[in-house]
Amino acid sequence: MRRIKLTLSYDGTDFKGWQVQPGLPTIQGFLEEAFLEIEEAPVHVSGSGRTDAGVHALAQVAAVSINNPIPTRNLKKALNRILPFDIRVIDVEEVPAGFHPRFDATSKTYEYRVHRGEVCPPFERRYLHHHPYPMDEKKFVDAARQFEGEFDFSSFAASDDRDAEKRSKVRRIFSSEAVLRGERLIYRVTGSGFLKHMVRNSVGTLLEVGKGNVDCDRLAWLLTAPPAVKAGPTAPANGLFLIEVHYGSSGPEATDRSAVPTADA
Amino acid sequence: MRRIKLTLSYDGTDFKGWQVQPGLPTIQGFLEEAFLEIEEAPVHVSGSGRTDAGVHALAQVAAVSINNPIPTRNLKKALNRILPFDIRVIDVEEVPAGFHPRFDATSKTYEYRVHRGEVCPPFERRYLHHHPYPMDEKKFVDAARQFEGEFDFSSFAASDDRDAEKRSKVRRIFSSEAVLRGERLIYRVTGSGFLKHMVRNSVGTLLEVGKGNVDCDRLAWLLTAPPAVKAGPTAPANGLFLIEVHYGSSGPEATDRSAVPTADA
Repeated sequence: MRRIKLTLSYDGTDFKGWQVQPGLPTIQGFLEEAFLEIEEAPVHVSGSGRTDAGVHALAQVAAVSINNPIPTRNLKKALNRILPFDIRVIDVEEVPAGFHPRFDATSKTYEYRVHRGEVCPPFERRYLHHHPYPMDEKKFVDAARQFEGEFDFSSFAASDDRDAEKRSKVRRIFSSEAVLRGERLIYRVTGSGFLKHMVRNSVGTLLEVGKGNVDCDRLAWLLTAPPAVKAGPTAPANGLFLIEVHYGSSGPEATDRSAVPTADA
Repeated sequence: MRRIKLTLSYDGTDFKGWQVQPGLPTIQGFLEEAFLEIEEAPVHVSGSGRTDAGVHALAQVAAVSINNPIPTRNLKKALNRILPFDIRVIDVEEVPAGFHPRFDATSKTYEYRVHRGEVCPPFERRYLHHHPYPMDEKKFVDAARQFEGEFDFSSFAASDDRDAEKRSKVRRIFSSEAVLRGERLIYRVTGSGFLKHMVRNSVGTLLEVGKGNVDCDRLAWLLTAPPAVKAGPTAPANGLFLIEVHYGSSGPEATDRSAVPTADA
């Protein structure tokens, strides 16, 4: 068997998230169907993690084990011929048999984009959370740094997280930064791992900070609060991009090479 | 009656073009429905020109006459509340009663975007013509200037142009330029007016020049050829944007302020 690492870019708008669900369009589902055609046998595609319905990826990482001897360059072409245009394979690489996209990942970077202008550009409506309401963006930007460090993020996990009692909710955030660029409020976070809805609940909380409904002390308290306390609200999925998954030596500082769609001509 | 000038931005992907067609989604159709709701009477919306199915606009110009005394700022909000998210009103202005968006226009600027990379980014697939095939982009860029001047563009008009025999096909092109920016070949043209499919047939012809199937002499000949000769092929609609419509003193040199979606972070 050959172990193949895939780097994927997708527009999550029209998918029900990463994970296979019978009869529903999912990223993993389309990939497994494409490999069924190439390998002529069922193949399991592992991802670095699930993305929710509507969440996008600039460089999601997945892996498969196949017998087909097809060269990686041709495999990339074959996959892009079979897959829908909103899922693209941007890189295919042969890796050691033990590679696992989730367990081997050392950190991940997400980006969330808020459009502050009165009118949301139609060409980017799928990739922006349009939030034109009064807010002090400086408060959002300043508070973003408070997420840096190691915290129990229980209060920022989805309420329906079924593993709630079982696994540790402690995650390390290496960097958490927001900038205001014109009418765009861009939030970028790199961490050891993320709980379900964690980035969207962080952004939802930062928007509350911007609106003056949550202050620095309250945010600090939420980062140490018991699991029963829920931060948020959950910001919409469409503003969120998985930007990069880091492995071993490729540290989180290498993230800026990624190209995110933007309206700046 | 008040005369209202509208500036519109739209993602043409899911529309059957500008012009009203009963039972089909069109830009003009959605605008007239929105005004029916606001004015409580049928309203005719005039455009600066039709855009084909799938063609986008950054700043299309239209006009309506209404009795409703609603302030322009509120009218903009009301329209954007009613219209689908892929049509946005970016400006509303009260103008003299005689204003006509088509007859008063002095020139128009279009842009066409070709993606030369192997993989088309999923976030821009609606706004790019993906054409990764071997080509000398320099030939495309050099030949683009040949369109500048006054020509009878009969050979570049759609074959089904029903007015073919009636109206003059002479148009003046003020500037016609292409640039290669990374994996993007961007063509921008400003002219006194454009025939149906004229920009798409120009781009289709320039792609043939790039591929070595048409040379400079042949292109020069096409620009003076009898109507029975057809240039082209017609490049796909999705790469085309109406960038700006110019009126009176706002000359074609003012076009670069427009923001087109791009993948450059």
